[in-house]
Amino acid sequence: MRAVVLSIGSELVTGLGLDTHSAEIALALGSLGVAVVRHETLDDDAAQIAVGFVAAAGDADLVIATGGLGPTPDDRTRDGLAQAIGVPLEASAEALAMLEAWSAPRGRKLSESNRRQAMLPRGAEALPNPVGTAPGILARLGRATVFCLPGVPSEMERMLADQVLPRLRSAEARVLRVRTVRTFGLPESVIGERLADLMAPGRRPRVATAVHAGAIDVHIHASGSANEVDRLLEADAAEVKRRLGAVVFGEGADEMEDAVAALLAQRGAKIALAESSTGGLIAARLVNVPGMSEHLVEGIVAYSNASKVRLLGVPKEIIERHGAVSEPVVRAMAEGVRAGSGADVGVAVTGVAGPSGGTPDKPVGTIWFAVADGAGTQAARELFAGDRATIRARTAVYALNLVRLRLSGGRKPDFL
Amino acid sequence: MRAVVLSIGSELVTGLGLDTHSAEIALALGSLGVAVVRHETLDDDAAQIAVGFVAAAGDADLVIATGGLGPTPDDRTRDGLAQAIGVPLEASAEALAMLEAWSAPRGRKLSESNRRQAMLPRGAEALPNPVGTAPGILARLGRATVFCLPGVPSEMERMLADQVLPRLRSAEARVLRVRTVRTFGLPESVIGERLADLMAPGRRPRVATAVHAGAIDVHIHASGSANEVDRLLEADAAEVKRRLGAVVFGEGADEMEDAVAALLAQRGAKIALAESSTGGLIAARLVNVPGMSEHLVEGIVAYSNASKVRLLGVPKEIIERHGAVSEPVVRAMAEGVRAGSGADVGVAVTGVAGPSGGTPDKPVGTIWFAVADGAGTQAARELFAGDRATIRARTAVYALNLVRLRLSGGRKPDFL
Repeated sequence: MRAVVLSIGSELVTGLGLDTHSAEIALALGSLGVAVVRHETLDDDAAQIAVGFVAAAGDADLVIATGGLGPTPDDRTRDGLAQAIGVPLEASAEALAMLEAWSAPRGRKLSESNRRQAMLPRGAEALPNPVGTAPGILARLGRATVFCLPGVPSEMERMLADQVLPRLRSAEARVLRVRTVRTFGLPESVIGERLADLMAPGRRPRVATAVHAGAIDVHIHASGSANEVDRLLEADAAEVKRRLGAVVFGEGADEMEDAVAALLAQRGAKIALAESSTGGLIAARLVNVPGMSEHLVEGIVAYSNASKVRLLGVPKEIIERHGAVSEPVVRAMAEGVRAGSGADVGVAVTGVAGPSGGTPDKPVGTIWFAVADGAGTQAARELFAGDRATIRARTAVYALNLVRLRLSGGRKPDFL
Repeated sequence: MRAVVLSIGSELVTGLGLDTHSAEIALALGSLGVAVVRHETLDDDAAQIAVGFVAAAGDADLVIATGGLGPTPDDRTRDGLAQAIGVPLEASAEALAMLEAWSAPRGRKLSESNRRQAMLPRGAEALPNPVGTAPGILARLGRATVFCLPGVPSEMERMLADQVLPRLRSAEARVLRVRTVRTFGLPESVIGERLADLMAPGRRPRVATAVHAGAIDVHIHASGSANEVDRLLEADAAEVKRRLGAVVFGEGADEMEDAVAALLAQRGAKIALAESSTGGLIAARLVNVPGMSEHLVEGIVAYSNASKVRLLGVPKEIIERHGAVSEPVVRAMAEGVRAGSGADVGVAVTGVAGPSGGTPDKPVGTIWFAVADGAGTQAARELFAGDRATIRARTAVYALNLVRLRLSGGRKPDFL
């Protein structure tokens, strides 16, 4: 079964509102094995909505539309669907009864505008909405089944669960599942080369890469019976992990800080942070993980040189001789925060996040990293592109990745 | 001018990723008076992409596509566009030079897969990407102009600003502009009551509220000639600000940290932070503002009690007597970080971000705040709802807002 998802509303087309419904519906359909072929976001215009429905029904067996079922004149989904089917709108006794059942216990009388909500394309079925006024619509358009749901998130979610998914469940024995392997440290092009045969067009399961917040995700998509799908996903995920090795830091919704937290817990290790250009971002990401108080002793945002000297014990002379963004300073920061806090691992970052402060020697994006532990101190230099926010976000992930590699027993691998 | 926005990527169609680019692009186009007629989200399938381009070019003068320009075999936008135009893909010397210019200073050689990124539909122009490998594409399809941008957010945003918008500006005499007044501290319903007449349906300019990351935004929408629009927006914005008073912290893209930074600059004041439950989030938000090194002396993430004692000079006895989440401790933290750093203002936060650690006395979401300056120390207690990430994010904004109110000469107003 193939589906198209339509999202209707001028606030979405203008970008003032963000369409999150289509992704939510696509995930729910995917879990039942229904392949979503595309989404479309349409304005509150009956003619445009009609064109959208006709095109969708040409491409799919199932069309799910959200929005445009309200009582105000800018709600045009009913009109658009009727035009697409080629039938008039008629008052639906069923829909009127639903509206009455919603309004009566609330002591409200149906207004003229509420009655508009009971006008359905001839032959369509009204779907009960237990949490709002707008009834949903179930109709046929050519060979496709069309569901129209309200745009209010709580109403859409409830009706998707109660009215749409149960009607599809029995129809599909097949499921479509996605497994995600998350990597950091290799460019997408290199990952693509290492996985070239798995990613070949037409191969099943389908393997695809996507950049997500500085990391490269490998998505593996499989469909079939639940057992078969799980077996296929497991085999491909194992192969992807074998080929990519230490660049794999997690699966699914794992973030880099989750990988670091798991290693800290495994080793019973404590960590302390000395941040300059990231300004607390590394600490904030670690603290995203519940229970971090067991492992994070402290973080010091030594933004001024005076703080680097006073709180971290960085010798003033080496700041003067090498500058705050330098290997000797970052090493002294990592060793200083480790010694001061008594943590097992000290991590330091100092760099030029921009937009100003760059020099020919140390352009904007130059970042020095250091990780100090019982075995010594390891330093690394990177040059990141992008604006201030991007450079700082990448710096934080890169630093956490260095900690991950160090804790998992490795040196910084050659590819970094 | 009419536009269609296409978003390409299987992770978007399946709902694993959320398309935020289309809304961002639609907003940017709207501000130039370009009417966006619809968005479409398409799979990484060359034939489907080609159909999407042809349909878009039939409906609009301008088509902007994002995604599918990467180096791996699942990146199919180039192929889809070439099919739509009816021309072959050819290696573009221009695009190759851009890829070389990106790779050479990074010591990387162009791989075969990178070279795919230089294959453009015959006759298309390569657009430089200063922050990533994928060049953009500018092409004609029928009567429409087509721009293809990378899907990586930092790259898309930079190229939209540098390559797309400047080519459109000046083309339109009629503009649609939105002005946003940002507030913090009053519930949306109260703001709605204070602005009821301005928000009446049908009134022009249209005034609407939206919740955005804990703040309530008031959006004012006007269209017409540039002069007229600016006059209408200015009048409404002034009226909104007059009615809402001290809860207004900024306009447009201003964040709370921008308001604090502006006040620090105005007063030539220095600030230091002592964070516990927020784990560096307040520092990280302040450091979002370029030039913060002039004002932020240091931030201390005193996550353990030992760090609160050693780095902030909090007396051990008051932690033992009152607990780490208490008014005496938060006051001592704020005063300690101020004294230690020599800053004018010391800010402290300690609380229970959850999911565990709550008690009947101090449930999850309990946060103590303190701001210390030359005039004394002010403390406040709040109870936030939500999960760990939400509680921490709200705590950071609330703390910055307290600093804002303190720096702007006010006490904590009654409504907080």
